[in-house]
Amino acid sequence: MTDRGAQQLRGEAAVSQALAFDTISFLTDHGTKDEFVGVVKSVIRTITPGVAVIDITHEIEPHDVRAGGLALARSVQYLAPGVVLAVVDPGVGTERKGVVIEVADGAAYLVGPDNGVLAPAVSIVGGATGAVVLDNPEYQLPRVGTTFDGRDIFAPAAAHLCAGVPMDALGTRIDPSQLVPGVLPVSQTADDGAISAEVLWVDRFGNLQLNVDPAEIETWGEAIEVSGGRVKRTAARIATFAEVPTGSLGLMVDSSGLLAIVVDRSSAAFELELDEGDAVVLRAFEGNPSVSTSVQLGRTKSARPTGASFENEELLCDPPS
Amino acid sequence: MTDRGAQQLRGEAAVSQALAFDTISFLTDHGTKDEFVGVVKSVIRTITPGVAVIDITHEIEPHDVRAGGLALARSVQYLAPGVVLAVVDPGVGTERKGVVIEVADGAAYLVGPDNGVLAPAVSIVGGATGAVVLDNPEYQLPRVGTTFDGRDIFAPAAAHLCAGVPMDALGTRIDPSQLVPGVLPVSQTADDGAISAEVLWVDRFGNLQLNVDPAEIETWGEAIEVSGGRVKRTAARIATFAEVPTGSLGLMVDSSGLLAIVVDRSSAAFELELDEGDAVVLRAFEGNPSVSTSVQLGRTKSARPTGASFENEELLCDPPS
Amino acid sequence: MTDRGAQQLRGEAAVSQALAFDTISFLTDHGTKDEFVGVVKSVIRTITPGVAVIDITHEIEPHDVRAGGLALARSVQYLAPGVVLAVVDPGVGTERKGVVIEVADGAAYLVGPDNGVLAPAVSIVGGATGAVVLDNPEYQLPRVGTTFDGRDIFAPAAAHLCAGVPMDALGTRIDPSQLVPGVLPVSQTADDGAISAEVLWVDRFGNLQLNVDPAEIETWGEAIEVSGGRVKRTAARIATFAEVPTGSLGLMVDSSGLLAIVVDRSSAAFELELDEGDAVVLRAFEGNPSVSTSVQLGRTKSARPTGASFENEELLCDPPS
Repeated sequence: MTDRGAQQLRGEAAVSQALAFDTISFLTDHGTKDEFVGVVKSVIRTITPGVAVIDITHEIEPHDVRAGGLALARSVQYLAPGVVLAVVDPGVGTERKGVVIEVADGAAYLVGPDNGVLAPAVSIVGGATGAVVLDNPEYQLPRVGTTFDGRDIFAPAAAHLCAGVPMDALGTRIDPSQLVPGVLPVSQTADDGAISAEVLWVDRFGNLQLNVDPAEIETWGEAIEVSGGRVKRTAARIATFAEVPTGSLGLMVDSSGLLAIVVDRSSAAFELELDEGDAVVLRAFEGNPSVSTSVQLGRTKSARPTGASFENEELLCDPPS
Repeated sequence: MTDRGAQQLRGEAAVSQALAFDTISFLTDHGTKDEFVGVVKSVIRTITPGVAVIDITHEIEPHDVRAGGLALARSVQYLAPGVVLAVVDPGVGTERKGVVIEVADGAAYLVGPDNGVLAPAVSIVGGATGAVVLDNPEYQLPRVGTTFDGRDIFAPAAAHLCAGVPMDALGTRIDPSQLVPGVLPVSQTADDGAISAEVLWVDRFGNLQLNVDPAEIETWGEAIEVSGGRVKRTAARIATFAEVPTGSLGLMVDSSGLLAIVVDRSSAAFELELDEGDAVVLRAFEGNPSVSTSVQLGRTKSARPTGASFENEELLCDPPS
Repeated sequence: MTDRGAQQLRGEAAVSQALAFDTISFLTDHGTKDEFVGVVKSVIRTITPGVAVIDITHEIEPHDVRAGGLALARSVQYLAPGVVLAVVDPGVGTERKGVVIEVADGAAYLVGPDNGVLAPAVSIVGGATGAVVLDNPEYQLPRVGTTFDGRDIFAPAAAHLCAGVPMDALGTRIDPSQLVPGVLPVSQTADDGAISAEVLWVDRFGNLQLNVDPAEIETWGEAIEVSGGRVKRTAARIATFAEVPTGSLGLMVDSSGLLAIVVDRSSAAFELELDEGDAVVLRAFEGNPSVSTSVQLGRTKSARPTGASFENEELLCDPPS
C-alpha cells in the first residue's frame, strides 16, 4: 500500500485540461457514514482533476435498485450536462455487467451496474443510442476484493469519459436492447373508474408520490377517496400545501408532475402508515357514495399524532388491490 | 420530459465565464435522503457552471425557520464572498414572497423566502441595502407543481446573480423595511440578578447554546446555578471542555461567542433533558445561598447515563420562567 | 461581528492563483446536522479560493479517534494529491497540540490534532518526513471560544499549505518521533492455530471488517468457525457476496484487502450482535471437529430476521478471548 499511497498523494497541482464533460452527477446507496463516497470522488479527481461531482443522493436504502432508479429519473431532466454515475448494486461481484450507456448520440453518458437502476432515466432522456460493457481492465483500478466496483470500475469509467476517452475504449459494445430494463409500476383503472396506484416515493417530508398523472383525475370532483393500507380517507384536491385543512389530506401535483398525497406541515406517510411500494386506490368521491357507509373497525387514539382529527377515516377489512 | 432532458444533458463543457460571484453558500431543511439538494445544485451548475456551491447544512428540522435563521447567523461571518441561498420554506406555494436581499451595497446577496430565515444573517452583516421580490418568470424555471421553489425560483436567482445579472432584472424592488423580520429571543435580567435565557441551539455534541453574552455574567463567581426543565444544577464556569469534572456541568464561551452549557465528552442536552427553545435561568450561586436547601423530589437512577454523578442536582416543582 | 461579516462577504470573484495543492481531503466527527463542516469549507474557500474540498466522511462517532484514524487509513491510498484535513478532537482546547505532518518529503501534508487520528494514514504512505506544531497565530483566525479549532486553526493551515505557504511558517518544528502514535489492534494466533481478532469497522451494510490478513487463513479449509459475542457460527470462505447461502455467514476479502464477515443482502453486525472493537475468534473448522458438539443453549426465534435459518449457530457460555 505504501508506494501506491505516496504516489497517489504526490503533490503536483492539476494540469489544466480540455474536458469532454466537466460534471459527474453521482447517486448511490453507499450512505455518508463511511468513506465510500469520498473515496469514489477522490478516484475521479485523481484521474480527471477538473471535473465537478454533484451529489444527487447517497441515502438510497441499501440495495434498493428501484428507489435509486426512481430518484435518478426524477432528477435527470435537471442535471448539468455531462456524465451520470449511479451505483446501487446488490449484485456487486457477480455476473451482472457494469455498463456505460450513451444517450442522445453522445450528448451524455450514464455509468453503473446493468441492473435497471439507470433504465428509467435513460428512457426519460430519449433512450439509449449505444452501450458498452465495462470489461477493459486498462481503464479500471486494480481490484482489492470484489465488493467496491464503484471505486474500481465505475468511477474510473466516468472520469475517463469526462477526460475524452471514447466509450468504446472502456469495453465491449452490446446492443442496448440487451440491457436490463427498469420495472416501473403502472396504475390501473378499474371498470368503476377507481385507480389502483402505488406509492412511488416517500420524501423527507412524508409526502406520498403516486404513479398517477394528474390528468387522470382531471374530471373528478374536489373530494377524492383515498384507500391504502388499513385506512380509507377523503382527500381534497389542492394546489398548495397551505390549502389542506388541519388534520385532513390533500392531493396535489408534486415537483415531478405526479399526484402526491400530502398533509400540511406533517407527514402523510406517518398518518396513513404507508411506505414506498404500498398500494393506494383513488376513487371519485361523488361517484361512489356508498363507500362512506362501510363499517368502522376502530383504532386506538394513541396511535395518532396530536392535533390531527382524522375525519372521514375508515378502516378496510381487506387491503386494496 | 424527453426533449428537455436531452437538452439539459447536452455535453458541451462549460465555456469559461467572468463571474460576478463564484460561490453560493447553501442552507436548507431539505435533508440529503432525497435528491432535492442535488437537483438545486444541478440547476445552478447548468445556469452558471463556474460557481462553487458550499453546503452549510441541509439538516435543519423540516419547516424550522428559526433554526435555519440561527444557523445562518452563526455562519455568515465566515462565509466565502458571494451569494447565500437559504431555503426553509413552510409557506411554499402560498402568498409569501421570494426575495433577494442586497447587503453592503452589493458586496453580497441573500436569496430565499421572505419569512425571516434570512433576517438574522442580514442584520449581522450590517442590514439590507436593497431588496427585490422574485417575480420575473424569465429568470425562473417553468414550474412543475408548486412545491419546489428552491429549484424553480431561488436557485436560478442565485445562479443568475453569480453570472452578473443585476438584482433588478430578477423582479420588483421593495423597501427592505417591508421584509419579514427575524424574531430572536432576548434574555431578561430580573431584579434579583437572575438571567432568564433560552436554548438557541443544541449541536451534534449536545452542547446547549444560550442567548446570553458571556459579559453578562463576568462579575459572577465560578459556580453558577442553572435551572431548566425540571432540573436545577450547579455549573462551573470553565474555559475548555476538559475542565468540567466528570458528571458536572460547565458554562463556557462557545464558537459563536455565546454562553453554552456543556458536559465533557457527553451531551448536556441529554443530561438536562433540554431542547432548542427551552427556558433556562442562570443565577450567581454565591448571591443566592438559600437555593441549595430546596427539597429533593427524587428521580430514578435508571434515567441517568452511566458514570454521571449529578451532584447539586435538584428538581423544580414549577418550570422556570 | 458586523464589520467582519461584511468584509468576509465582499464580492470580488477569486483571482486565479497558482496553487501548491488544489485538493483538501476532509474527515471529521462534526456531522452534517450543524453548520460546522460548511463553515470550515467557507474558511478554506475564503483563504484559498481555487481549492477543491472532498468530504471523506463527517459521520465518525463523536470523539472516536480510533474510528477516524481507521477511516482515513482505509481511504488514504485513493486520495487525490494534496492536503488531508482530519479533525476528530475530543481534547480541543486542552494542551494537545495541533500539527501538520509532512509525508514523502513534501509530496503531501496531513493537518489535524496530534492525538493519533492522523497516525495510521501517515504510516501507510511511508511515515512522516517532518512535522510542525501549529503555534503561529498569524496563520490562524482570531479565536472565538476554544471549541472550534477546525475552523480557527486547522482549516487555515490546510488552506495556506495549498496556497504555497511553507510548513515552517505555520509553527514550530518538532521531531516526528514525538507525535502521538496510532494504536491499532493486532490479531494474535494461539498455539492451536486459532486467531484472536477484533472488529475494526462496521460499515453501512453491516459487514464486519476484521484485523486479519486473508493470507493468515489461506491454508485453512472452506468452512471457518467464527466466535464472537455470545455466538459461535460457521462461515463459508467466499469470493463474492452472492456465494453466501441464505442465512449463512461468509468470510471474504473486503475492499481494504482485509477479511470481513458478511451476510448476503443483510447485516452481519445485526445477526451476530457485534460492534466495532468487539473480539472475534477464527478457527479452521476441520482442525477442530469437537466444536460442533458443544451444547445448544437456545435462542428465541423472535430475535432473528425473517427468512434466516442460522444453521451451525451455537451460543457460548463465556465470551471468546
